Amino acid sequence: MKILITSGGTREKIDAVRSIANHASGSLGKQIAEKFLAQGHQVTLVTTKTAVKPARQPNLCLAEITDVSSLIQTLEPLVKTHDLLIHSMAVSDYTPVYMTDLDEVQQAENVTELLSRKNSQQKISSAADYQVLFLKKTAKVISLVKQWNPQIKLIGFKLLAGVSKDTLFAAARKSLINNQASYILANDLFEIKADSHHAFLIGHTEIHEAFTKSEIAQLIYEKGIQND
Amino acid sequence: MKILITSGGTREKIDAVRSIANHASGSLGKQIAEKFLAQGHQVTLVTTKTAVKPARQPNLCLAEITDVSSLIQTLEPLVKTHDLLIHSMAVSDYTPVYMTDLDEVQQAENVTELLSRKNSQQKISSAADYQVLFLKKTAKVISLVKQWNPQIKLIGFKLLAGVSKDTLFAAARKSLINNQASYILANDLFEIKADSHHAFLIGHTEIHEAFTKSEIAQLIYEKGIQND
Repeated sequence: MKILITSGGTREKIDAVRSIANHASGSLGKQIAEKFLAQGHQVTLVTTKTAVKPARQPNLCLAEITDVSSLIQTLEPLVKTHDLLIHSMAVSDYTPVYMTDLDEVQQAENVTELLSRKNSQQKISSAADYQVLFLKKTAKVISLVKQWNPQIKLIGFKLLAGVSKDTLFAAARKSLINNQASYILANDLFEIKADSHHAFLIGHTEIHEAFTKSEIAQLIYEKGIQND
Repeated sequence: MKILITSGGTREKIDAVRSIANHASGSLGKQIAEKFLAQGHQVTLVTTKTAVKPARQPNLCLAEITDVSSLIQTLEPLVKTHDLLIHSMAVSDYTPVYMTDLDEVQQAENVTELLSRKNSQQKISSAADYQVLFLKKTAKVISLVKQWNPQIKLIGFKLLAGVSKDTLFAAARKSLINNQASYILANDLFEIKADSHHAFLIGHTEIHEAFTKSEIAQLIYEKGIQND
């Protein structure tokens, strides 16, 4: 069984110096990869330069990406040649389009016209007191997986912050169905601490609860290798 | 001589999950710190969780910060008790105020009214096709240094991207004078490669050129310990 895991977080450039990032460290994806490696599986880990990674070893293949666009380019051929994808990477949902000062926004007849402008400076000037950054939605990578390979088994992730269990479960179930996933690991940022990580692995007919990254990795391992 | 060095880059939170970051890795600050440590100096390094750091050793004191506000809080007492500050950290010049969808911006009578709104969700919804992020200028940390301690010797940094040497030098000289620095290390992002780092150390009556991080660290060491 060929295992594909994504970990860490994408970054979207605002200009040559600045970018929008998220707080993903890659540590959960690392533990999941290590679990499969310890059982003798071949693992391909798609991750970022700054994410924490398992030690180099013969059964581990590493691919580094930066933004959503590079993730898609790297992931598509890999999804087509693997049996299981565990998509734990935090993928940016917006990417910068244009950044300008408040004056230009106030002077625009319609703000939508600003969406077609482009920054010409490599590092956007920091003279103005206020700046306005326009962002557009990125492609939903998880929704492309089954288009690329209808046969691959998919375990997705849903991270929210400070929501009720109902809201979290509803969002996870929506992702489960829309993306034809086998399971969604649902978790709330406020229940991730240094030494604990509360999460639910939500399937079509079952829910499993875990309290540490190690328990999450074990659950995902068991459900990942089992025949559906 | 008590040496204070800043390295890495600040991050400003958009919400519980997203932030605006910059591409600073902390590697130049690390090499500068190592140069002073190797000569037996006591070094305090103010840096970030993700920045690369020198190995732990008795003469090195580490302080970790996250955003500009935490940098100011940490730096002020340290500036008052050190003799030399080498401020190589890439400090965010804007911090998020409010993020909303395009509709709300179009409906606002005046966009300035949006600057006083606050996001109530912990993770801002990703439903809209476009989002607009309003940012305000952060406090210029380097301009506070001599207010905190008029006696401290200050070496600042100026990073631009894809500009002429004239533009870079003019920006560095402006910082040198406005911030009462002894030197400004001026560099262009496009002249920083994996194995080379072109920079100019600009003083009030002299300019020194360097081509690697090691040469920069050596220059800053020599000029840092010399009596003005």
